Amino acid sequence: MRVLGVDPGLTRCGLGIVDIEGRRVNLVSVSVAATPSTWETPARLASIADAVDALLAEFTPDAVAMERVFAQHNVRTVMGTAQASGVVMLAAERAGLPLSLYTPSEVKAAVTGEGRAAKPQVGFMVARILGLTDPPKPADAADALAIAITHGWRGKAQGAATAAQERWAAAEKAANGQAASRQTARRR
Amino acid sequence: MRVLGVDPGLTRCGLGIVDIEGRRVNLVSVSVAATPSTWETPARLASIADAVDALLAEFTPDAVAMERVFAQHNVRTVMGTAQASGVVMLAAERAGLPLSLYTPSEVKAAVTGEGRAAKPQVGFMVARILGLTDPPKPADAADALAIAITHGWRGKAQGAATAAQERWAAAEKAANGQAASRQTARRR
Repeated sequence: MRVLGVDPGLTRCGLGIVDIEGRRVNLVSVSVAATPSTWETPARLASIADAVDALLAEFTPDAVAMERVFAQHNVRTVMGTAQASGVVMLAAERAGLPLSLYTPSEVKAAVTGEGRAAKPQVGFMVARILGLTDPPKPADAADALAIAITHGWRGKAQGAATAAQERWAAAEKAANGQAASRQTARRR
Repeated sequence: MRVLGVDPGLTRCGLGIVDIEGRRVNLVSVSVAATPSTWETPARLASIADAVDALLAEFTPDAVAMERVFAQHNVRTVMGTAQASGVVMLAAERAGLPLSLYTPSEVKAAVTGEGRAAKPQVGFMVARILGLTDPPKPADAADALAIAITHGWRGKAQGAATAAQERWAAAEKAANGQAASRQTARRR
C-alpha cells in the first residue's frame, strides 16, 4: 500500500509518501510545501493544493493520511492550518482517494510506542523505520512520514516493538494463558 | 462590478452574486451549498468547491468577498468553517479573482449603518437594497448577499442612509456650515 502522509500547515506543509507491505516501509518521496507569510492566504493555499495535486499525479498513492487539526491549541495559527487541511482534503476527494485523520498522540504511539513522545523521538524512529542515516528535516517532513506510517500500520502488528508494546503483549499473552488454563480446568 | 459574496460554512455555505454600479445593486444569483453532517468532511468540501466553481464559470464575477473567520468563537464549528473558507479561497485564486475578507461588524455596518445590528435587520436591509419583497432565506443566503454588497460599496457613498448615517451627515453638514460662517465672518 502506498500512502501520502500530510502534516498540514500554511507556512510549511509536510508531504511524505511511503510504500508499506506488512512491517516493511520504504521511502518514496518526502518534501515540504513552504510559502512565505508575505503571500496572501489564497495564493498560499493554491501553492499547497498544486503541490499535493502534483504528488498524487506523479506517485498515485492508494490513500491519504493527515494529522487531525484541533481548534483548542495554537489559536494564532489554527485557522491557517485548518484552511490548509481543507484544500488537502479537497485534493484527496477529487482524486477519489480515501482520507484518514490521526491525532498527534496516535502518530507518536504508532511510531514510538509512546503517545507522549517528544518530537525528536518521532524523527529518530522515522529514520530507523525507513533505514535512513538521519531524521528527515524539517520536523514537518518527518511528521508527514510518521503519519503515513501510522496509516499503513493501523491495526497491524508493528515493526519495531517498543517497551510499552512488549509489556502489553506480555500481559495479553498471560491473560490468554490463564483463560486457557481455566478452560482446561473446567474440562477436567 | 459583479461580486460573489460567500458566508462560509460546512453545513450551509451562503453564495450570493450581485451587480453593483454606484449605489444601485441588482441581484444576479443566490443559493446555499448545503451538505448533510453524515457526509465525510472531504466530500462536503468538494461539494462546496464544486458549487463555487460552477458559479464562477456561469456568472464570471469580477471579485469574491467572504466573511472573515475567527478562531475565538464557535470552537465546535470553527474548524469546518475554516476548511470551507479554505476551499473557497482556492477556487477564487485558481479562477484568478481577487478575494477580500470582511468582519461581521463591517458587513452589518455597511448594510444597516450599525456594526452591532441584529441578524434579522441584515436580512431586512438586504431585501430593501435589492428591491425584494422578503429577506432571502436562509440567513446564510442573506448574509452572503450582504457581504457582496459590502465589497461593492467599500469606500463609497452607500444606498439607503440609516438613522446613524443621517445623524453623522447632519453633524458633518452643521460643522461645515459653522466653518463657512467663520470664514465669511473673517472676510468682513
